[in-house]
Order: sequence, then C-alpha cells, then structure tokens
Amino acid sequence: MRYFKLTIAYDGTDFHGWQFQKDKPTIQGEIVSVLRRLTQENIALLGAGRTDAGVHALGQVGSFRTQSVLSAQEFQRALNALLPPTIRIVAAEEKGPDFNARWSAKGKVYRYRIYRGKVVPPMLWRFVLHYPFPLNEDAMKDAAARFVGVHDFSSFAASTGSEDDDKERNMQREIFSSELTRTDDREELWFTVHGRSFLRYMVRKMVGTLLEVGRGKLTPGDIDKLYELKDRSKSGPTVPPQGLFMVSVDHDDTFRITPNE
Amino acid sequence: MRYFKLTIAYDGTDFHGWQFQKDKPTIQGEIVSVLRRLTQENIALLGAGRTDAGVHALGQVGSFRTQSVLSAQEFQRALNALLPPTIRIVAAEEKGPDFNARWSAKGKVYRYRIYRGKVVPPMLWRFVLHYPFPLNEDAMKDAAARFVGVHDFSSFAASTGSEDDDKERNMQREIFSSELTRTDDREELWFTVHGRSFLRYMVRKMVGTLLEVGRGKLTPGDIDKLYELKDRSKSGPTVPPQGLFMVSVDHDDTFRITPNE
Repeated sequence: MRYFKLTIAYDGTDFHGWQFQKDKPTIQGEIVSVLRRLTQENIALLGAGRTDAGVHALGQVGSFRTQSVLSAQEFQRALNALLPPTIRIVAAEEKGPDFNARWSAKGKVYRYRIYRGKVVPPMLWRFVLHYPFPLNEDAMKDAAARFVGVHDFSSFAASTGSEDDDKERNMQREIFSSELTRTDDREELWFTVHGRSFLRYMVRKMVGTLLEVGRGKLTPGDIDKLYELKDRSKSGPTVPPQGLFMVSVDHDDTFRITPNE
Repeated sequence: MRYFKLTIAYDGTDFHGWQFQKDKPTIQGEIVSVLRRLTQENIALLGAGRTDAGVHALGQVGSFRTQSVLSAQEFQRALNALLPPTIRIVAAEEKGPDFNARWSAKGKVYRYRIYRGKVVPPMLWRFVLHYPFPLNEDAMKDAAARFVGVHDFSSFAASTGSEDDDKERNMQREIFSSELTRTDDREELWFTVHGRSFLRYMVRKMVGTLLEVGRGKLTPGDIDKLYELKDRSKSGPTVPPQGLFMVSVDHDDTFRITPNE
C-alpha cells in the first residue's frame, strides 16, 4: 500500500463545499471520482478540513492510499488533466502510512477578503465580500488581536456542531495569530487567522463580528465579553462564504495529534 | 440631449464578444439592454473597439446619448446594480456632444497574460494562457520591441477585415510601445502593447509570433521580414482569447481623429 498527500487549490463558487454529496458537485466528489477512474480502486480521500459551499482554498490538504504504481508527479499531472480548471492539485507527495490529512494537521490558516473599493472588478467578484461603507479599521484591528489565545468560541460557533463534526462539545479553540491588514493596492482588507482548529462558521462569525466593531455597533472589548457570554446571538452575523479561503494547513509528519486533543 | 462616457471592465469568458448578436450574450447587448430598461429609450451604445469572444477588458470605453435626467453617477450605480458581476461600469462621466467612444479614441493599450508556472491557480484560469514550456525570453523581448513604429501589419492580420470593420484596406498601423515583462511574482509573462489602432486578431498574432521566437522557430529579425512579406501564414498562430485584455483607451475630448485618418 502507498500513501499520498495532495495540496489542493479551488474556486469554491460552483461547488457545494468540500464534502461528498450524492448528485451534487463537491470538491471531494470531483477528486475522488478522478482518482477512482485512474486507479480502478475504491479510493477514499480525506481532507484536512471541510470547507462550506462557496468557500475557496489555496492549500487544502488531502490524503489517500492506493496500490497504484503511479508516482506522485504522475498523479498530479493526471488529476490536473482530468479535473475542471477550478480545482488544481498544486503539489503531490508520497508519504508514510502515518500521514493522515485530517489527524496530522497541527493548524490551519484561513483568510477572508473584503473589497473596500466602490466597484468590484469582474475578475474578483467570486473571491471577495464587497463592503464599500465606512469602517473604523483601527478598532477592527484591536478586536482582531483579541482572538489570539485559548478561548471558548461558543459565541462564534454555528448553531450545530464543529467543523470537524466530531462528538465532543468542547468549544475551546487555540488561535496562534489573528490580524487585519490592507493589501498593498489599498483596495482590500484581509483578515488572516491561524489556529490549531476551528468551529464550523467560526471564521465567518469572527469577520461578521469585526464588521460590527468597524461599524461601531460593538467595541473591541466586547470580544472578551463574548467569550464569557457563550451566546452566538450576541456576536456579529455569519458573513457570506465567497470571501473565505483556506490558505494552508500545517503538517508535520513526525508529530501526530490525537483526535481528542 | 445628453452624452455619457462609460469605462467598462469585464470578464469575457461567458460572452460572445463585445458586439451585439441576436440570441447570444454579448457585453454590448447586456449593457444596452439595461440602458434601454433604465431610460425607456432606444439607446445605441458605441464601443471604442470590438473585443472578440473570450477577450476581457479593464478599461473598454462606451458612449451613448439620452434624454434621461439620470446623472452619470446614477447611471453607474443603476447599471452595476442590474448588470451581472462579470460586467462592471468602473466610471461614468457626462461629456459634450463631440465625444464618441470610437472616433475620439487616440490609442489603445492591450495586454496578453502568459502563465509560466507549472499549475494555473483556479482563480486565474479564465485570464491567462498556460505556457509552462521553455522560452528564450530575451529573444522575445528583442522581437517585441520591433513592433514599435509604423509598419504594414498584413502578416499579423486576421484573414478578413480589421478590428474596426471599415472598408479601407490600409494595413499600416502605428505602435507607440510594445514590451514583454515578468510580473513581480515571476509567474507570468505580460505582453503590453500601446498603439493608435489595431487590426483584428493583431495582438493575438503578435503573441503567437513572439512565442515562435521564444521557441527558436523564428528569430527577432524575422519580425522585420514579416512586414515585407505581408503573408499571415509566415507569422505565428493566433493565440487563444482568454489571455487578452483591453487595458485602456486614450481619449482626449478636445482632439478628434477623423474616421479615415
């Protein structure tokens, strides 16, 4: 048996998210379908995290095992030749049996793009939230920094479950870095957050809350209160998916976290 | 009567070019349709140049006249609210009766994007030609510079007619600047050409010829010979439309070129 790691980029606009669904186009479904045609095996593809419908990736990670004789580079070329141009295998590597896209992940980076200019260029509309109205960006930067650390993110969770869809109801998550920056051309505001793991909709609720801070409806100090309140109705709304990118996944093959860590 | 100038950006992927066609989506068709609904007048929209199916624009220019009371800013907002996100009015201005998008144009800038990396990111596939094979870029730069000046571009023309679709068969065109550059991230090669006017397919034939130079099938000096040969079968192929952008149009409202200049 051989073990492969895939680094995957996609434009999520036309897909119903990462996870396989019967009769609906999904990223996992498209890639699995090509892998099965290439190998004639009943391949299972694991992802480092599930992205929701309309969410994009620059560096999602997948893993699968196979008895195929194809090399990593041959898998990459064949997949890219057969997948739609909206899904690309940016790298492929052969790994040891311990590598698992999901359980080997030590952290993930997400980015949310907010377009501040008056008119969204036609090349960007799939990839940004348009918010051309006034915002207090200094207050938002202050608020963004308050996500760093270990906190109970119940106020930033979806109404059900976590991104990992496991049964544990521990809503504590660790955020390593969290910042809001203007792009060099000044047209976009990027929220970039690096954490060990995330609850479902957590990044989009964080951004919705930052926008409420920018509009003066909440203060930066309210972020700390929200950790205490554990009430998702008190934070900002879940912003639309199209501005969100899974940027990268930290994998260290010699380090393996346990599912319930 | 009032006169308006529109600066228009579009992703041409899903359109059959600029020019109106019955029962097919075109840029001009989409904009005219919205303008007619807004004004209840039989508006005619002129474009600075026709772009072919699949070609994009960052700064196409259109002009129309109307008896509407809407301001330029109101036209811009209403159009952007009703057009698909792949077509954007990036600016609107009220002009005098002498302004005409086509005949007031003193020059145009086109750009062709060639993606040199191994895998085209899913956010870019609509906007670049993928050419990951070796190229002698120094030779291509030398060749690109030879397009500058007044030359007979018969060897770089479509088999029929000119971009302007006029009856004159003068194949001389003036190129003000022409250069090939790597983007800052080194992943793309951009051919940017500024000229008074262009023959149909001329930019795409120029790029096809530059690629032949890069592959060693032609030399930079062959560009000069092609002006003499006036034979389109001796130049490179017409490259696909998706890498091509109409970047901008030079307009000077106090200067007006005559149609047959």
